Amino acid sequence: MRLSVIFRTLGALTFFLGLTMVVPILFSLYYRDGDLQALIQSSLITTATGAFLFLSFRKVVHQISHREGFAIVAFGWISAAFFGSLPYLLGGVFPNLVEAYFESMSGFTTTGATVLPAMEGVPRGILFWRSLTHWLGGMGIIVLSIAILPLLGVGGMQLFRAEVPGPVADKLRPRIAETAKILWQVYMLISAAETILLMAGGMSLFEALCHTFGTMATGGFSTRSVSIGAYNSAYYDGVITIFMILAGTNFALHYQTLTGEWRSLVRNSEVRFYWTLLGGSMALVTLVLRFETYDTLKMAFRYASFQVTSIMTTTGYTTADFERWPSFVQYLLVLLMFVGGSAGSTGGGMKCMRILLLLKQGYRELIRLIHPHGIIPVRLGSRAVSGEIMNSVWGFFFLFILIFVLASVGMALLGLDIVSAFVSVAATINNIGPGLGVVGPMDNYRSIPYLGKWVLIFCMLVGRLELYTVIVLLVPEFWKR
Amino acid sequence: MRLSVIFRTLGALTFFLGLTMVVPILFSLYYRDGDLQALIQSSLITTATGAFLFLSFRKVVHQISHREGFAIVAFGWISAAFFGSLPYLLGGVFPNLVEAYFESMSGFTTTGATVLPAMEGVPRGILFWRSLTHWLGGMGIIVLSIAILPLLGVGGMQLFRAEVPGPVADKLRPRIAETAKILWQVYMLISAAETILLMAGGMSLFEALCHTFGTMATGGFSTRSVSIGAYNSAYYDGVITIFMILAGTNFALHYQTLTGEWRSLVRNSEVRFYWTLLGGSMALVTLVLRFETYDTLKMAFRYASFQVTSIMTTTGYTTADFERWPSFVQYLLVLLMFVGGSAGSTGGGMKCMRILLLLKQGYRELIRLIHPHGIIPVRLGSRAVSGEIMNSVWGFFFLFILIFVLASVGMALLGLDIVSAFVSVAATINNIGPGLGVVGPMDNYRSIPYLGKWVLIFCMLVGRLELYTVIVLLVPEFWKR
Repeated sequence: MRLSVIFRTLGALTFFLGLTMVVPILFSLYYRDGDLQALIQSSLITTATGAFLFLSFRKVVHQISHREGFAIVAFGWISAAFFGSLPYLLGGVFPNLVEAYFESMSGFTTTGATVLPAMEGVPRGILFWRSLTHWLGGMGIIVLSIAILPLLGVGGMQLFRAEVPGPVADKLRPRIAETAKILWQVYMLISAAETILLMAGGMSLFEALCHTFGTMATGGFSTRSVSIGAYNSAYYDGVITIFMILAGTNFALHYQTLTGEWRSLVRNSEVRFYWTLLGGSMALVTLVLRFETYDTLKMAFRYASFQVTSIMTTTGYTTADFERWPSFVQYLLVLLMFVGGSAGSTGGGMKCMRILLLLKQGYRELIRLIHPHGIIPVRLGSRAVSGEIMNSVWGFFFLFILIFVLASVGMALLGLDIVSAFVSVAATINNIGPGLGVVGPMDNYRSIPYLGKWVLIFCMLVGRLELYTVIVLLVPEFWKR
Repeated sequence: MRLSVIFRTLGALTFFLGLTMVVPILFSLYYRDGDLQALIQSSLITTATGAFLFLSFRKVVHQISHREGFAIVAFGWISAAFFGSLPYLLGGVFPNLVEAYFESMSGFTTTGATVLPAMEGVPRGILFWRSLTHWLGGMGIIVLSIAILPLLGVGGMQLFRAEVPGPVADKLRPRIAETAKILWQVYMLISAAETILLMAGGMSLFEALCHTFGTMATGGFSTRSVSIGAYNSAYYDGVITIFMILAGTNFALHYQTLTGEWRSLVRNSEVRFYWTLLGGSMALVTLVLRFETYDTLKMAFRYASFQVTSIMTTTGYTTADFERWPSFVQYLLVLLMFVGGSAGSTGGGMKCMRILLLLKQGYRELIRLIHPHGIIPVRLGSRAVSGEIMNSVWGFFFLFILIFVLASVGMALLGLDIVSAFVSVAATINNIGPGLGVVGPMDNYRSIPYLGKWVLIFCMLVGRLELYTVIVLLVPEFWKR
């Protein structure tokens, strides 16, 4: 492993991160909330560090190895979260590193878990930066999952390739930079559409952008303490619901749809699974809420569809205190956290594709008991899925549950009650944000003990980077030779 | 599928079940608690039905097919639980079928979940029958898991074979009847030892037998409402802890140990994993209880070792109200429910062997990322585990979680709070008995709504019969042709 390659790449990344801080600086100049100095300092420190690293390691490399790839991805997020926490620290928003780092990691991993007790007092430049970290993190995730991870042998997009051969796979393989450009154009286009629709409803540019960032990255940071519920507007609820669904869909499919191949969207197995599960859960929750909580079907549908979408796409926006809903609905929401969005989207969780494949192989094992000598492959669309891919999916599933179990045992050991220990880890490892218990929709993560905050920071990171990318760094074997 | 084969086998099974009711009749004659008539009637109905079925389908068959095997196993348990509920119904212990059937299924599946609010008022003949159903169920499970399921391509003992070639595998293959005889001798020998040790401490024959049945089957029915805690005796706690550990160990290994090959016990990967996890959890819980709950290390160890063993072996006896223990300990106990005992023991849960294999393959996937071109097999002892076995383990793991999720969502839909919905299913599908919340150690399952009782009955059955045996009957493909 060549450290120079890693440092040089991280340097470039950090440099550009510092440049993006110019946007919140502009908002700070406009609103004059007193955060200008903190933002300028942060930007300077970040760009300078980045430039220094980049220039110190000038060796030009054409090929990066597997291990270097893992190290760049994991340390890329870790260092972005570090520099991203500077505005909070220098602006005095948080008194200590752990809270600033928690908020920043929550941003870049598009989790949306917050340690801010209220958003209304925070200077708007910093608030904008907070939402921007979501959007940047989402950009990173799309490129990571569609273009980079498959090269490293990890992640859901291997699976996507298994089903959709031809244009996308070919387009994605040769050059990461080109792929990134195409995907970012799609990301920006959909983001622009949402911003315009939100402004059409009356939001200021500042609020529209912040909520677009939170939606498109399936992040969940809001400019209001009670999230989207603060607006009490069926229009905003509807717009954001639709864009959350889009953000939870594979961006390679969006690209195909935009270039006219919309049939691939409808034919895609994962998309159909995603829609079916989302639609079915919405219907079920609407029904239960109609009888137990709301007086009209319309109200029940509005709150149910928003909350189900928000949780399943792992966004984490709220329009109601779902801890007051029937325990069945709460339980269903917690389970949907683990499913998450589609592979190649900004959504977290285990991803629809994996759950679909696990269901298919589970069923196949049953059929195999009835026909012990038959050969029955697991199919996705018209193609058989290779044993190697299935092994990687099984390994992922088990490792996910293992990390989940260890982390939630840790949280219980730190004194959290059972529901809070379980859900705080579920809401961070799946990159949702709000959960139940002490981290419920009307609470925040401030009350979690310091050590617990570090555990949850780890969960956000490991969940966001598809486990392997981070865990592989903890295996001694990785560092040998 | 030949129904005649199935009915004839079930007939023989039912006939013998009726004969076993003679033992509780003897206790009823001795104690004269007024349950004599109910027991005699039950015995007659059961033997008569069994004999009628057996004689009506006289066709002698030498070979049973895969499908017939599944049907016999699943309907064997279903019908045993039905006839086993007759003493409760005819004796007036329960007012309706669902409660009587719940108690009977809980017995035969060695779960130990009860709907009896108090044991002290129940006639002792019936109470003895209740404990006897555990012991009979345990007998069935040992033979099922070691001798029958491997022939059907299901279950943990395939795995055992993978590691231990030679004597056991050879002995187990040729004849189910011979294998059953050997295993039952071991089962009876260890049971006799426990009964003698309990009587040496002062228990009556009746109580010693009932608690032996509850221990050896990892069942958990007691003759006292507050379980083993009623005796408040460190001696009983110790004896029962040791025999719970034995009952959670593979009975084929016990046989080897008794014939002098004790080394295979120490060398066995699953046993080492089982001891390590059990010992580690005991130590951790002892430590936490010492600081939070008990004044002396001795007390903390006594209650911790008993409860950890009781839960992990899926017995379900209690000596303390563990709902008052720190939430970390409660959470750990719930997690241990899912691990369960060893393959080929009477313990439930997913089984140590499966968890061990999943851990090994999870780790292998990590190593494979570092060495993408290396071929790294999953090893158990000195042998590589085949891909087919791994597939069956993965399928089991996912199906287990899927059924767990669906059942617990169902319980939440019936109005249970989140913890109770989660734990009531965990405590039944893993065949433990007591859980947390409304089914906590000081409560019982009476408060569960009727429909919920049927859901939990299904969980007990499906968990006990290693999922596939029951689920395969629900696949339309199974009934074709």
